[in-house]
Amino acid sequence: MEIWLYLAIVAALAALVLAAVFARQVNSASPGSDRMQELMAAIREGAMAFIRREYTAVAGFVAIMAILIFVLLDWGRPWGSIAYIFGAFLSALAGFIGMRIATAANARTAEAARTGGIDAALPLAFRGGGVMGFTVAGLGLLGLSLGYLFFRVILEDEQAFEIITAIGLGGSSIALFSRVGGGIYTKAADVGADLVGKVEAGIPEDDPRNPAVIADNVGDNVGDVAGMGADLYESYVGSIVAASAVAVVGAARGELSPATVLLPFAIAAVGIAAALIGSFMVRTRENASQEDLLRTLRTAVWTASGLVVPGIALLILLDGTIGWPIFFAILLGLVAGLLIAYFTEYYTSYTEKPTQGIAQASRTGVATLIIEGLAVGMRSTLAPVAIVMVAVIGAYLLGFNNAAGGRIGGADGGLYAVSLAAVGMLSTLGITLATDAYGPVADNAGGIAEMAHLPKEVRARTDALDSLGNTTAATGKGFAIGSAVLTALGLIAAYAQTSGLQGAQLTLLDPRLLGALLFGAMLPFLFSAITMTAVGRAAMQIVEEVRRQFREIAGLKEGAPDARADYARCVAISTRSALREMVLPGVLAVAAPIAVGILLGPAALAGLLVGATASGFVLAIMMANSGGAWDNAKKFIETGELGGKGSDNHKAAVVGDTVGDPFKDTSGPSLNILIKLMSVVSLVFAPLFVQIGGLIR
Amino acid sequence: MEIWLYLAIVAALAALVLAAVFARQVNSASPGSDRMQELMAAIREGAMAFIRREYTAVAGFVAIMAILIFVLLDWGRPWGSIAYIFGAFLSALAGFIGMRIATAANARTAEAARTGGIDAALPLAFRGGGVMGFTVAGLGLLGLSLGYLFFRVILEDEQAFEIITAIGLGGSSIALFSRVGGGIYTKAADVGADLVGKVEAGIPEDDPRNPAVIADNVGDNVGDVAGMGADLYESYVGSIVAASAVAVVGAARGELSPATVLLPFAIAAVGIAAALIGSFMVRTRENASQEDLLRTLRTAVWTASGLVVPGIALLILLDGTIGWPIFFAILLGLVAGLLIAYFTEYYTSYTEKPTQGIAQASRTGVATLIIEGLAVGMRSTLAPVAIVMVAVIGAYLLGFNNAAGGRIGGADGGLYAVSLAAVGMLSTLGITLATDAYGPVADNAGGIAEMAHLPKEVRARTDALDSLGNTTAATGKGFAIGSAVLTALGLIAAYAQTSGLQGAQLTLLDPRLLGALLFGAMLPFLFSAITMTAVGRAAMQIVEEVRRQFREIAGLKEGAPDARADYARCVAISTRSALREMVLPGVLAVAAPIAVGILLGPAALAGLLVGATASGFVLAIMMANSGGAWDNAKKFIETGELGGKGSDNHKAAVVGDTVGDPFKDTSGPSLNILIKLMSVVSLVFAPLFVQIGGLIR
Repeated sequence: MEIWLYLAIVAALAALVLAAVFARQVNSASPGSDRMQELMAAIREGAMAFIRREYTAVAGFVAIMAILIFVLLDWGRPWGSIAYIFGAFLSALAGFIGMRIATAANARTAEAARTGGIDAALPLAFRGGGVMGFTVAGLGLLGLSLGYLFFRVILEDEQAFEIITAIGLGGSSIALFSRVGGGIYTKAADVGADLVGKVEAGIPEDDPRNPAVIADNVGDNVGDVAGMGADLYESYVGSIVAASAVAVVGAARGELSPATVLLPFAIAAVGIAAALIGSFMVRTRENASQEDLLRTLRTAVWTASGLVVPGIALLILLDGTIGWPIFFAILLGLVAGLLIAYFTEYYTSYTEKPTQGIAQASRTGVATLIIEGLAVGMRSTLAPVAIVMVAVIGAYLLGFNNAAGGRIGGADGGLYAVSLAAVGMLSTLGITLATDAYGPVADNAGGIAEMAHLPKEVRARTDALDSLGNTTAATGKGFAIGSAVLTALGLIAAYAQTSGLQGAQLTLLDPRLLGALLFGAMLPFLFSAITMTAVGRAAMQIVEEVRRQFREIAGLKEGAPDARADYARCVAISTRSALREMVLPGVLAVAAPIAVGILLGPAALAGLLVGATASGFVLAIMMANSGGAWDNAKKFIETGELGGKGSDNHKAAVVGDTVGDPFKDTSGPSLNILIKLMSVVSLVFAPLFVQIGGLIR
Repeated sequence: MEIWLYLAIVAALAALVLAAVFARQVNSASPGSDRMQELMAAIREGAMAFIRREYTAVAGFVAIMAILIFVLLDWGRPWGSIAYIFGAFLSALAGFIGMRIATAANARTAEAARTGGIDAALPLAFRGGGVMGFTVAGLGLLGLSLGYLFFRVILEDEQAFEIITAIGLGGSSIALFSRVGGGIYTKAADVGADLVGKVEAGIPEDDPRNPAVIADNVGDNVGDVAGMGADLYESYVGSIVAASAVAVVGAARGELSPATVLLPFAIAAVGIAAALIGSFMVRTRENASQEDLLRTLRTAVWTASGLVVPGIALLILLDGTIGWPIFFAILLGLVAGLLIAYFTEYYTSYTEKPTQGIAQASRTGVATLIIEGLAVGMRSTLAPVAIVMVAVIGAYLLGFNNAAGGRIGGADGGLYAVSLAAVGMLSTLGITLATDAYGPVADNAGGIAEMAHLPKEVRARTDALDSLGNTTAATGKGFAIGSAVLTALGLIAAYAQTSGLQGAQLTLLDPRLLGALLFGAMLPFLFSAITMTAVGRAAMQIVEEVRRQFREIAGLKEGAPDARADYARCVAISTRSALREMVLPGVLAVAAPIAVGILLGPAALAGLLVGATASGFVLAIMMANSGGAWDNAKKFIETGELGGKGSDNHKAAVVGDTVGDPFKDTSGPSLNILIKLMSVVSLVFAPLFVQIGGLIR
């Protein structure tokens, strides 16, 4: 179905057009008073300064990797390196555009809340985040489609797909730095601002006297817009690459219908169309309750998911060679994504028992609150893991027993179906990411409303929007982890297939594979330790800078009208530390699979990937949910329960929230990158490992 | 080498004789004043009451399992059930004897410290723990040897070994309840006593006014003597069973020399002899420094390890059909155990950087101290996992490339060598467990010295002994985890071999295996969540009881001479909650492998076991080391650093210590049991799973 490739290009362009429309709508809204514009400009400058410096650093990394690809992978021509740079460039571009608009939407959302109320503010904030969502989907799909078209002209089909994997690696490289660096930045600024501001100086959150307040607001964008966007860009592109790579090998062997190669592109195209329609449903009425707002966003996401189903059915029907079992495998992925999001919300929402139990534990002090939070996080891993297990086994068996168009699925069909489940889960990415990226826009709008001293009722409206953002952030994290795991499994399947590894080689009885699996299971813990420590170190530098400013700038702490905090310095410090701290985890994530692949061989490397994916999945959920639940346990107490704000229980909950900050916003999300990046590095360098065959035999 | 079986019986009897000698030496020492005897009796009664009620509950479990074995495993005759009950009985007996003597040694150690000084007290405390060490080794080895002799008479060789695995399962059943129940008991009493005593009422630790103080001291014995003993009994027996089971199958195929079947017994015999000699080296002089004491115990352990090496070399030399590569594989296991203990000490000792870093983090509050402690625990997983990885791969390659006596090792040789590495690591168990069980004796001696108001210099001596016990407890935990993992891997190898699973069946490309692996990686987290929550719930009941007694017993809190705390009630409450709380994790550990084996088949079950072992290993180390490091960070501050006792930093460290309590003494150690128990359940029920072949295909 050659037409599917063109369909994908058309859909990708449509997504970009929608992003442009959203961007224009945001930019044409009023940015409010001079003070609001000034604050917006400060946040924007900080965010763009970070992203520029980050991309400069990444450029060096990309250059080294491009040379490595050129030298180590003997493709004869520089196509791999070019594809890699192309992929990295597109992901960076998506991040850049998304950030520009998200940081333009914050003050405008606050202004809309002031002049038009919630029903004007919600769509604006959503569109501010929607630019990120649809740019990621659009550029991700466009890049793959154009890349495939181009490389197919100059190379054979199979080779073209080997090259395309490098586009995925490009996206992964950006994701590594955006997620890890962004995660460190956002929590260093947040923790640093809180430790001195709230705790030492006793001034409220988002107070303009706090020199780290702008860095804190910048951090929301850097972490939750650029970081999350790059993470899901990687998943989106990675899942399509993995499914198509499996299909290319299977089709060459005659096990799969040739149409399977481009089916992932067509699914993505259908997904964009569905997300596009869903995004027009985000509207609300004045005095909308918290639940109304949540229902609005949820309806939009569910509509998109609902529309995807008949769309994909149509694809299967029109083609005729693919078979209905594949349709149900895709559906499994889609449903798994929604279910994981549901359970994430259950475990982290303060209207539910688990989080309330954590709040209750504050009555016997900090220690029991911490223990309970860790226990809730650990317990919350059961449902998502069981869901993914069912999806993986179910999809495989569907694909394996698929007998369509006179062909029999077999193992190739099974692996293909598993990788397609990931594509299904991510198909409506445009809108799921939009609801995610909406969060920091609303959060920033609230911050600007506070700093610009807008009337109380405006602040109440932005608070309602912000609170909704916290919910979507939590479910978004669950979705990001689930899709990362399915993508990683798809990439591992593609890796095994393109390396020509047979089932018997990938056996648990091979001690190198088993040893590498144990080692892989350890890596997420080591990686988390590094990123958690990095946040602590970076936050300490912010603390010292804020203390210095309070000491040296006369009248700042007391709020004298002419005393101005030096926001830019805190922004610069956060930027510098985040960039420095992301080197070690970055090197680890790239070096570990390459070292194991060279030393212990390609089969052992598969063991490493499976071990890391298994334990990384569980650890990431635990960290995200413990962190989210601590955060909301604090918010639960702040609603007046258990003594309310200022009580001893509240103080205990604040400690829990602080412990949870690096859990949920730095270390946990970084694990998504670790498992995908190691898999895609393995996929790209597979030919090298196969050639060497392992130095230790 | 038939003689090896008799050698094992002689060595086992020698171990039991030494235990009897130690017991007599302990019992003939003076138990001190009436008050001291009264306290000792209270602790002893509590401990024995717990163990009696625990064994009653376990008897029900054992009966159900025996019936299950009889019904599900069609061995025609009741041998499997009988072997199972025999194994459970021996482990329970070892726990009973060890506890009796350990709880008789505490007051006598305190009295020895009073009358004879440290050089009299140290050997006494060591012998009090040594009874546990040598009883476990003696009964463990004796039971296997006699069982094998007996079943060989009435069954064929291979069948006899299938039956012997049930002896291992018996030990595992006791370990489950002793470790999990004991872990819950000890921390519920400890946390409960601290929360009301130290925090609310402001009375010091081990103060006789605290109604939970006896329960707390009972808990030390229940958790660290009986729990640790049963854990290592399981590893000891399990590793021998696994190695011999692999050898039986390999020898039947002609791949392994027949001598390999009994080599594990011979290694254990040599190990007992070496441990016996080492245990005579525990002596010290008056005014021995902390370092002197540590050096004494270390010299004893290292001497035993050193003596094992030539002993094993002699076995290999005399037989001639086994080959030197196997010798080096055993050595790898032995060295791995010592290295893991070394790294555990590095990460948890307050003379080293990691723990001092945690103490430093207290300067910015509780949250940063918690984060730093978690990060240290996570980072500390690198070394042990790398060590085990090297040991597994190294041992396998040695065994694989072994060409002795005209036979070629191959895959059977590789698996055999891996399982022997575990036997090597555990060979000197008698003395390593003795140094472990020494800890609670010394701890109790200190408690009795405090409660009986012995002079300050006596308390200083018992403090020195106790502090040494903390170090040996930490390294003992590392050793227990490392040996549990190697034992589990050995059991998994035996499981794969006795199920007749080929390499190609155990492939990562099988989605059921992969899905089960993901699920297995989640189980340790779920298991830990359950045990952590159990501690919290049980501790709350203690808190309420202590509050009630302070409220209702006039003059108790103020220390009126005629006001007597009702110790027995706190003991009874701890016992009841621990027994109730261990049901759920116990059912989970047994039901999960059986359910997966029946539903997804024997290959998928191997995936579950590998996933659980990989993530359980890492999580157990993290929890043990975070907990140990928090504990010692608090002790570091108590030496006067960072403001010393009572400062804000100290208060933060106390919170860290409380969070760490269930980490290091309940949830972490329980994971050892989880991974071994699931493996041995799989091994025993393997014929059933093979017969069914998985309901979901």
